[in-house]
Amino acid sequence: MVLKLKEIVEITGGEVIGDDTVEIGSVARIEEAREGQIAFLANLKYSKFLSQTGASVIIVPKDVPKVKNKSLLCVEDPYYAFLQVLNIFHPPKLFIEKGIHTSAVISPSAELGEDISVGPFVYIGKGCRIGARSVLMPGVVVYEDVIVGEDCVIHANVCLREKVRIGDRVILHNGVVVGSDGFGFAPKDGKYYKIPQVGTVVIENDVEIGANTTIDRATLGETRIHAGAKLDNLIQIAHNCTVGENTVIAAQAGLSGSTHVGKGVRVGGQVGFAGHLTVGDGAAIGAQSGVSKSVPPGQMVFGYPARPHMEALRIDGALRRLPKLIKEMKELRESIKKLEQDLSK
Amino acid sequence: MVLKLKEIVEITGGEVIGDDTVEIGSVARIEEAREGQIAFLANLKYSKFLSQTGASVIIVPKDVPKVKNKSLLCVEDPYYAFLQVLNIFHPPKLFIEKGIHTSAVISPSAELGEDISVGPFVYIGKGCRIGARSVLMPGVVVYEDVIVGEDCVIHANVCLREKVRIGDRVILHNGVVVGSDGFGFAPKDGKYYKIPQVGTVVIENDVEIGANTTIDRATLGETRIHAGAKLDNLIQIAHNCTVGENTVIAAQAGLSGSTHVGKGVRVGGQVGFAGHLTVGDGAAIGAQSGVSKSVPPGQMVFGYPARPHMEALRIDGALRRLPKLIKEMKELRESIKKLEQDLSK
Amino acid sequence: MVLKLKEIVEITGGEVIGDDTVEIGSVARIEEAREGQIAFLANLKYSKFLSQTGASVIIVPKDVPKVKNKSLLCVEDPYYAFLQVLNIFHPPKLFIEKGIHTSAVISPSAELGEDISVGPFVYIGKGCRIGARSVLMPGVVVYEDVIVGEDCVIHANVCLREKVRIGDRVILHNGVVVGSDGFGFAPKDGKYYKIPQVGTVVIENDVEIGANTTIDRATLGETRIHAGAKLDNLIQIAHNCTVGENTVIAAQAGLSGSTHVGKGVRVGGQVGFAGHLTVGDGAAIGAQSGVSKSVPPGQMVFGYPARPHMEALRIDGALRRLPKLIKEMKELRESIKKLEQDLSK
Repeated sequence: MVLKLKEIVEITGGEVIGDDTVEIGSVARIEEAREGQIAFLANLKYSKFLSQTGASVIIVPKDVPKVKNKSLLCVEDPYYAFLQVLNIFHPPKLFIEKGIHTSAVISPSAELGEDISVGPFVYIGKGCRIGARSVLMPGVVVYEDVIVGEDCVIHANVCLREKVRIGDRVILHNGVVVGSDGFGFAPKDGKYYKIPQVGTVVIENDVEIGANTTIDRATLGETRIHAGAKLDNLIQIAHNCTVGENTVIAAQAGLSGSTHVGKGVRVGGQVGFAGHLTVGDGAAIGAQSGVSKSVPPGQMVFGYPARPHMEALRIDGALRRLPKLIKEMKELRESIKKLEQDLSK
Repeated sequence: MVLKLKEIVEITGGEVIGDDTVEIGSVARIEEAREGQIAFLANLKYSKFLSQTGASVIIVPKDVPKVKNKSLLCVEDPYYAFLQVLNIFHPPKLFIEKGIHTSAVISPSAELGEDISVGPFVYIGKGCRIGARSVLMPGVVVYEDVIVGEDCVIHANVCLREKVRIGDRVILHNGVVVGSDGFGFAPKDGKYYKIPQVGTVVIENDVEIGANTTIDRATLGETRIHAGAKLDNLIQIAHNCTVGENTVIAAQAGLSGSTHVGKGVRVGGQVGFAGHLTVGDGAAIGAQSGVSKSVPPGQMVFGYPARPHMEALRIDGALRRLPKLIKEMKELRESIKKLEQDLSK
Repeated sequence: MVLKLKEIVEITGGEVIGDDTVEIGSVARIEEAREGQIAFLANLKYSKFLSQTGASVIIVPKDVPKVKNKSLLCVEDPYYAFLQVLNIFHPPKLFIEKGIHTSAVISPSAELGEDISVGPFVYIGKGCRIGARSVLMPGVVVYEDVIVGEDCVIHANVCLREKVRIGDRVILHNGVVVGSDGFGFAPKDGKYYKIPQVGTVVIENDVEIGANTTIDRATLGETRIHAGAKLDNLIQIAHNCTVGENTVIAAQAGLSGSTHVGKGVRVGGQVGFAGHLTVGDGAAIGAQSGVSKSVPPGQMVFGYPARPHMEALRIDGALRRLPKLIKEMKELRESIKKLEQDLSK
């Protein structure tokens, strides 16, 4: 596909500086782009690339200085415009053919929506419902009484355990497990006895979950990932947790049981949360933090244990001065000793 | 199923306060329970729910005050009684039908016990033995010469590598890998050469392992998870490790090679152990700790690096006072200076 | 297979002390070895085993004292000789039979090399090329336009996403995901919009990747694992990262987006890297470190946040003395007060 810049600007909005009839065939990184390609610059820190790049068009923030021989597409939000342009040149596509592969094993009691795609070696258990246009890639295993909404993409080798409910437009990457048993055992006489995990998991609309992430079913009730939340790879969500709307969690983070993370929260990679906490809406948790207490709405915390941002910075700064402090302490001790001696003369 | 409370108390033991003929049809969380349901209260911290709940019966610790219009089931250990009641209303059930699905590929040399269930797309290699009543869910892959005991549940997409041995009543959740190669390479001239990992993994009876957890085979000899140990999701057990009887390990923890964790140890989430350590029986490791030294039996440690509980608490407390300490130090310095000046007059 | 020691020394090199006609049938750990077995001792710390072991031959470093009734094989590098001996007695073997299992689903447009092995329930999409002698174990899913080189072992339930490229002699353990979408979303009005991840992943020759590790595809361009790199289990490699030649990364470590790790770097378990960092060639990162800044070539860092080795040691030492320091500070304050009082008299 080749488009003129003026056709692109109709979709992204913004203002063109330079020639709006230049033709664009693909998208590239600004460092690597060649003629006929469109690139983007979100951060003025990298503005040296504006003159170096081979791109024919660069998406830039407003108020970027003019560049010779390049067309600029000036927009409010270059990152979002970049996304729009990527969607033009790389529209979402099917990974497998429409229809149901003959090797799939589907319970006669399952209800399948229109235009779904079910790949080879997919298993769908009793009483399941799969919504229209959803795609189940090869090796997906769906236990019984599962509901999957419309327009979902369930990647290869995902497991959906009994009774879990998946909303519309949900993307689950390879190896995701939804609905494994929560980690619940009653100790008695030095042994641990399994507490049946008879709750479920609900994944709401527009959630995306990264590869090999695991989401445990509730003991009773439900574990719930609210609409629009985005989870990266290798994350652990324990039983009876909730993750709020439009919350983003980076890779390898983990929530212990019954912890509730609010809306619009940003969680860094490898963060760990203790159980039974509440993280308020709009909070932000720095990477690798160990969160042992509830976090108020809007608060930024980091560290191990996690502390409010400013306090953590102060402690970290003080820590760097600690070896020097110990030395100074010794000097003070000696000064005092000398003073005492002088005084006792 | 509907049971009278007096039928339930026959199983759990304990004492009924109130009407023991009330009928119960299901179990619910105390916050959500309705008439005809049984709930439980393990922690008196939540005793406000006793009067608020809609539950007909509440399992409580002994010596809880009487509640109007509710029947109480007073027991020694409410959590364990809750487990018993869950088992009454949610008896373990088969996830797939008995028998061997026609799509499964099973080596003719494999020995299959009575009443086993083998789902679609299961592969069982040469020389394997699967014990009576064990269940292999869809997509399970069993390499050659593997032994699986009786009454196991091997969830969908689990991989059991060559020669590993699984005991009786073992539960492996989805995506678990048992017997992948240990991470062993000999460096030579700046490159790394693979050391064949020719040992194995032994999982003893009554072990449960969470989703996507990985357990590497030994270089020589075996990696062993002892009876009754419970491992959560996304845990890494490296080659030649042992995990002791009735030890519990929370999600995303990791053991480096040849580390031996004793019996009855409790390991928090995201804990990391260096290699070649010994963790004594009954030790407890706080979440996210970095354990760089062996831990004596019964000791509680936490922190990065992990230290004995009291020491870690003292250091953490001191750390919080550190910024203030630096300020005070400055004041002391000034006081001394002033003293010195006064004295030199 | 039984070999005389003099046949073994022809392969390993080195010098025999004792009888070089002794016969060896297998390899064992020095603690467990019996007659007819060969063991190895890399570390003189364990030299007590030299007299205790039942092994007929022990591979030792040069200059080890002679042992009665044992043959010693003295070599420059015992660990590497051990690897050679393991390879003699445990030559690499096929996990499944050669050829293509009838249940595999392979696109007619895929090109398959000579002597490949494709197990049951393998899916290979349109336009793929699989190199000669490569092995795809059961349940492997290969999306479209994927290239796999020669002599690879792709273990059961691995997923290779669209367009990824795998070199020669690559080993991917069970559950590995190569090419899942990078975690990229543009925020707008409180929601997150998916940025199409249209780049790819390149895994070069001689790379080995551990179980359930995930490697995300680039947004644009590629994520690349260079030749000879070794990745352990449950690692996260985010979009647009590179891992240098002969770099080793231990389990559960994670790289955030666009971080570049150089050649010959050693990364400990559970290390986390922030995004857009550069880690120089030959650097070493201690286990569980949180790396928030770029690391110069050859530097050793550890800690949270990661600091140069000596600085981190100094701070850690000071930290241990901190509670005592606070006590001393109190004493100093009192001494000064007393001095001030004495002086004001």
